[in-house]
Amino acid sequence: MSGGRLPPSTVARLPRYLRFLEGLPGNTGVVSSDEIAEGSGVTAVQVRKDLSFLGTIGTRGVGYEVGALRGVIIRALGLEGPLQVVIVGSGNLGSALANYRGFEARGFMVHGLYDADPERIGTEINGTVVRHVDGMVDDLAERTIDIGIVATPREAAQSVADLLVRAGVRSILNFAPVVISAPAEMTVRQVDLATELQILSYHLARTR
Amino acid sequence: MSGGRLPPSTVARLPRYLRFLEGLPGNTGVVSSDEIAEGSGVTAVQVRKDLSFLGTIGTRGVGYEVGALRGVIIRALGLEGPLQVVIVGSGNLGSALANYRGFEARGFMVHGLYDADPERIGTEINGTVVRHVDGMVDDLAERTIDIGIVATPREAAQSVADLLVRAGVRSILNFAPVVISAPAEMTVRQVDLATELQILSYHLARTR
Repeated sequence: MSGGRLPPSTVARLPRYLRFLEGLPGNTGVVSSDEIAEGSGVTAVQVRKDLSFLGTIGTRGVGYEVGALRGVIIRALGLEGPLQVVIVGSGNLGSALANYRGFEARGFMVHGLYDADPERIGTEINGTVVRHVDGMVDDLAERTIDIGIVATPREAAQSVADLLVRAGVRSILNFAPVVISAPAEMTVRQVDLATELQILSYHLARTR
Repeated sequence: MSGGRLPPSTVARLPRYLRFLEGLPGNTGVVSSDEIAEGSGVTAVQVRKDLSFLGTIGTRGVGYEVGALRGVIIRALGLEGPLQVVIVGSGNLGSALANYRGFEARGFMVHGLYDADPERIGTEINGTVVRHVDGMVDDLAERTIDIGIVATPREAAQSVADLLVRAGVRSILNFAPVVISAPAEMTVRQVDLATELQILSYHLARTR
């Protein structure tokens, strides 16, 4: 990856711009920062600033070339090649994630699905057979998995994270409502499904 | 709600601070901005800046009083009273959300659960019976629902959103991978489960 580090808030907005661009018909033509802003729920000033960090400056009065801009954002996010994902936990959330159509379309391949519940082992979700988590470290010995998703109950999350670390998985996305610890060199992101509700709550409180 | 509007990035970080504070044993004692920063994955400077927007300034060399700070954040986010939530879509994602333990603990009550699949109507998820979405507008005629969660397939999302608007629901959280439109005065947030993977991808690309 070239260039300096992007501000975290810019990184968080790039997927939105990409989603908007992907929703445009075809891969040609130009799009203005106003249009990107409108489609992404961001101000046009912010769009131009974010994109300038990528070294992409639209043509004044014309805009950005759609295909080129998509390519720039995809490269900036490191999404050129498919990223390999394993999901641990095949309950409702893990199943929802394994079935989520947006993943494959965006270059994330679900390589494996693990659980500890004997009743679930061997069942198939969206083409992937659920395997026992006890075999995960061995299963993944020969493979590089980019992202391990923890979709287990809170109680199991840390031990699953430890297994993902042992399996050499490069990063962890934790949906369990508990903070997990991992070696400092490992990127761990915590998703809390209540956060979005809390942000909505803020907006509701201001419109009453 | 008092005071001016908070920067959106501050609003987005407040739930993280709150989560950290809630994880502390007891509701007494003091906590430093360094500790909040460490526990929330944010810099201490950012923590102090965010909290200063709330009119809360810690005592230099001492920190913030835990119980008071929790209260200030809860008020800022409008989380004093329980917020009423309905979930439309009782598939894996809707079920995962209805079962999510973090909601009730944070003041969100799942008032109703709706689906269009006859096989799901009448089933019970986490104590809530799934009802037919065709009856939703009537069901909610006498109630104020704060947040309607769309957890349907992409194809159904807009028509469900239209029903939520007709039902007088105050805001929408959309998990379907499609942009939905709603009246301008309504707050709509779009959750894309792939976004977090894309942000992780950025970090992975920089550590290779």
